Amino acid sequence: MSDKKLNIEKELLSYLPEKDELIGNLVSSMEYSLTAGGKRVRPMLVMEFAKLCGGSEEAAMPFACAIEMIHTYSLIHDDLPCMDNDDLRRGKPTNHKVYGEACALLAGSGLLTLAFEAASSERAVSLNSTEKCLAAVRVLSEAAGAVGMLGGQIIDLESEGKSVDIDHLKIMDAKKTGALIIAAAKLGCISAGASKEQIDAAVSYAENIGLAFQIVDDMLDITSSTEELGKPVGSDSENEKSTYAALLGLDECRKISEELTENAVKALEVFENDTETLKKFAYYLLRREN
Amino acid sequence: MSDKKLNIEKELLSYLPEKDELIGNLVSSMEYSLTAGGKRVRPMLVMEFAKLCGGSEEAAMPFACAIEMIHTYSLIHDDLPCMDNDDLRRGKPTNHKVYGEACALLAGSGLLTLAFEAASSERAVSLNSTEKCLAAVRVLSEAAGAVGMLGGQIIDLESEGKSVDIDHLKIMDAKKTGALIIAAAKLGCISAGASKEQIDAAVSYAENIGLAFQIVDDMLDITSSTEELGKPVGSDSENEKSTYAALLGLDECRKISEELTENAVKALEVFENDTETLKKFAYYLLRREN
Repeated sequence: MSDKKLNIEKELLSYLPEKDELIGNLVSSMEYSLTAGGKRVRPMLVMEFAKLCGGSEEAAMPFACAIEMIHTYSLIHDDLPCMDNDDLRRGKPTNHKVYGEACALLAGSGLLTLAFEAASSERAVSLNSTEKCLAAVRVLSEAAGAVGMLGGQIIDLESEGKSVDIDHLKIMDAKKTGALIIAAAKLGCISAGASKEQIDAAVSYAENIGLAFQIVDDMLDITSSTEELGKPVGSDSENEKSTYAALLGLDECRKISEELTENAVKALEVFENDTETLKKFAYYLLRREN
Repeated sequence: MSDKKLNIEKELLSYLPEKDELIGNLVSSMEYSLTAGGKRVRPMLVMEFAKLCGGSEEAAMPFACAIEMIHTYSLIHDDLPCMDNDDLRRGKPTNHKVYGEACALLAGSGLLTLAFEAASSERAVSLNSTEKCLAAVRVLSEAAGAVGMLGGQIIDLESEGKSVDIDHLKIMDAKKTGALIIAAAKLGCISAGASKEQIDAAVSYAENIGLAFQIVDDMLDITSSTEELGKPVGSDSENEKSTYAALLGLDECRKISEELTENAVKALEVFENDTETLKKFAYYLLRREN
């Protein structure tokens, strides 16, 4: 899997413009966050679903890069002082701590914009088709927009300091993290020209691992060490955020995240090709320690 | 022209998602800036070039909306405390003054994302074609990205408090405001299926009015009243920004902006259809008082 991560990173960087004298700092700031590690969950999903549906990693790669750019932009903006005001991300200083707030703001927007450039690029079209690329743009813009990820972020902001229930938390997370994870699965299917049945199964897998992912995140915020996590533990309770762990307790969280992972694996049954990688991936996300 | 502006506004709002209980504030914040007035220069250009090249206003409208969304997002983010920290825009409190910084940040990103949703929407495809819509996405993402508008913004930020020369200013403005104005002209051509010669002429017109527009802006920052301008006059010199007016003086600025406008009008000569509206538009931008 680490080979694949290196491939993704190399490809991500290939879309960045040249670091000339004038815009060099902006491009460096975009590069800093693109290469700051990360599990590459979303691009992995794009490529695995592409292969599972008879497509190729290579063709799916521009879409994989696009969704990782959007994810990275959301982290940069999320860390800004007016949002979560975080100093540390994946064990490194956050973007605005290194490049300043203004540059971090622009770098985030630059990555969001670059995602659409990647998905509509000549390379993307030649490996897929005009139709598939436009479908990818549509999926990306809906998932990243006000009804998707940004909607989740506003709900998150407005929930701070309030006690919210599980249903509220689920709706928030379905938008905040779920939307992009589901989009990743769809993008793989789009690249491969998958059937309606395959797309539905991919969405079901993604919905289940998406929620499991968030619940595990909440648990790690309590059980992990700062070193393992790459950011201060306990930041959720410090920010007065309602979390699954706080509302349900660790035991119940463990049980539910396992059930969700089983559901995800079950959703893969409709595929005729080998689903071993996606099964392993679901369990890896469940058992991860950061 | 005011009828057209109303049409554009109505269409802009049609792309916003429903204001439900959860994301209502985010959508209101996006709506607030979309309807906060403005000259609608970019959408006008899209539609006029579409008509000039044998297309229709109706077909060009989704692209016109997309570029106005991107322009509006850039204003919201530009006004944020970490950028220009402006309290007033077009005579109204800036977005973050009304909705708070976090919501304004998300609203800006929401409008950027919505632009790509509009350009790739079913409506856009049915009025144009998949090919034209993907070409529009490509033009929009390049113009709005790090080599375009965002590049201009980082140059602007890094130039503050420094004395820069005219060439530096021109490069900055070609990116910061020029890129979107040129993109607007291109989008109209794309919608109409224009020829290479027509696109080149449209780009030349846009380049010339784009620079004239910026020079007139600089002049108005000195000569206008706060009431006319809708924001405090003299904010450029207060922010220690090098401007054309400061570097060249008002008389030279007037001369150059007139020459650029003449060049723009001259570029229209290759078109066989009636170019009266675009000619008037160039002079309107030259002689405006806000």
